[in-house]
Amino acid sequence: MSLLVVGSVAFDAVETPFGKCDHILGGSASHFSISASFFTDVSIVGVVGGDFTEADGEVFRQRNIGTGDLERIPNGKTFRWAGRYEYDLNVAHTLDTQLNVFADFKPKLSEASKASRLLFLGNIQPDLQREVREQMPNAELVALDTMNLWIENTRDSLVRTIKGVHVVIINDAEARQLTGIPNLIKAAREILTWGPKALIVKRGEYGAALFTPQDYFAIPAYPLESVFDPTGAGDTFAGGFMGYLASQERLDEAAMRRAMIFGSVMASFNVEEFGTNRVRRLTHAEINERFQAFKQMT
Amino acid sequence: MSLLVVGSVAFDAVETPFGKCDHILGGSASHFSISASFFTDVSIVGVVGGDFTEADGEVFRQRNIGTGDLERIPNGKTFRWAGRYEYDLNVAHTLDTQLNVFADFKPKLSEASKASRLLFLGNIQPDLQREVREQMPNAELVALDTMNLWIENTRDSLVRTIKGVHVVIINDAEARQLTGIPNLIKAAREILTWGPKALIVKRGEYGAALFTPQDYFAIPAYPLESVFDPTGAGDTFAGGFMGYLASQERLDEAAMRRAMIFGSVMASFNVEEFGTNRVRRLTHAEINERFQAFKQMT
Repeated sequence: MSLLVVGSVAFDAVETPFGKCDHILGGSASHFSISASFFTDVSIVGVVGGDFTEADGEVFRQRNIGTGDLERIPNGKTFRWAGRYEYDLNVAHTLDTQLNVFADFKPKLSEASKASRLLFLGNIQPDLQREVREQMPNAELVALDTMNLWIENTRDSLVRTIKGVHVVIINDAEARQLTGIPNLIKAAREILTWGPKALIVKRGEYGAALFTPQDYFAIPAYPLESVFDPTGAGDTFAGGFMGYLASQERLDEAAMRRAMIFGSVMASFNVEEFGTNRVRRLTHAEINERFQAFKQMT
Repeated sequence: MSLLVVGSVAFDAVETPFGKCDHILGGSASHFSISASFFTDVSIVGVVGGDFTEADGEVFRQRNIGTGDLERIPNGKTFRWAGRYEYDLNVAHTLDTQLNVFADFKPKLSEASKASRLLFLGNIQPDLQREVREQMPNAELVALDTMNLWIENTRDSLVRTIKGVHVVIINDAEARQLTGIPNLIKAAREILTWGPKALIVKRGEYGAALFTPQDYFAIPAYPLESVFDPTGAGDTFAGGFMGYLASQERLDEAAMRRAMIFGSVMASFNVEEFGTNRVRRLTHAEINERFQAFKQMT
């Protein structure tokens, strides 16, 4: 098994100026794994409720995503999130969050999962991220995402978790908040002194940047004439990034640079339709075509 | 003569969280011409007052910048601008604007100036920009900058002026405001239908993007650990861009892409100190070193 992700599987309700949907598959582990599945074998560690039907899991089967460690709690309800985006899609409002079974989530890893070569710690409570990471001491590359909630409420635990991973993948506001340093470049240097060998800063419509102790690499976002729904773009980016790396023998900086482009390519598809709708029916030809267009424009 | 710029020469008073200065050389034509002077022969069309001394003009002489069309009105005062930046340097406040001699500015071009190969219309009233442009029908490449004030108050005139230039160089907020289209890519496409063959969108700390009818090219900003004073960064970018182009025989898209990088390199130096202080004492070796570092990181 190549790549393992621990994170949320959710039902999302999303409103944008362009449309509305009440009940679609969402969550960090869903977006991540569907994106990664175009590059490598990927499995999910997560939890769903009794309302998560066979039909809901169909997309995972179609994409050959491992769900052996996706726990199902029959008398519980799946995590639900509702959000609304303004005409400026950078402005998002969370309308409702129901953690449901996710509130008591305890990740359980099979022996097969623990043998995964790469691990992505999706945006969950940092103690849980660390518990999972400690069960996989031999993982070749471990990456982590987080959010403002954990930075505010559990910063010490989060910093401890970050010390034990190789790559941190967050957005620019989170990098500033985490370090208390307004200058992004200085904030990035600070995080790298904690232990990780690389930091990826996601900047939405402005692209993404890779910081390593020696180097800096930045790419723009793919220029889209219409962005339909930005939900899950960050996890889809991480899925493309980690999925591509999992397909490579050498996880060096050259591979990371290519992985950044694949991450951006996948994220650019993700925002074209609601939820995972666009990514789940991608072809490798479409991915490679956009990868080439990307290289052309930088 | 290679390159002509029409724009403001001003005295700036700038406050940032890192320092304060009461009286330094500023204005679009100053920043532009000093930046461009590292690549080509450049001359200014502008106006100053009797308070603009020999010493104030010293930097133009040092950089071999033509000031034959820099009118001096002995009983008038030079344009003054005072501004303050917050800790987040993207947030700027104008504290005071005294147009002085600039209020009645009528650009006067010598025959030598009219023969310039390239022309940059700095951010002044669009009717004046058009008057200058019409005096140089044979200019090989004409570029224009503008600001929210002209978009709000004189949009029709501005659009007419844009129809007569080859390259528009503005920031992303201005592109959206000018077209009324929130999606930047669509806004850019719209502007290109008006006539220009290229649009450059400046995105501050996120870099810059070049749109042509066929193509899209984006570069990040040079990663700086400390930004001291952002005043004039846009004009310094334009100076590097146009100055480099003026040094080239072929003004094709490949040249424009390299020019974008030189523009970003010059802007990255500009923000390291107050006003034009850093750029005026640059060496070609420093510029080329940062150009190479730039290529390395993309």
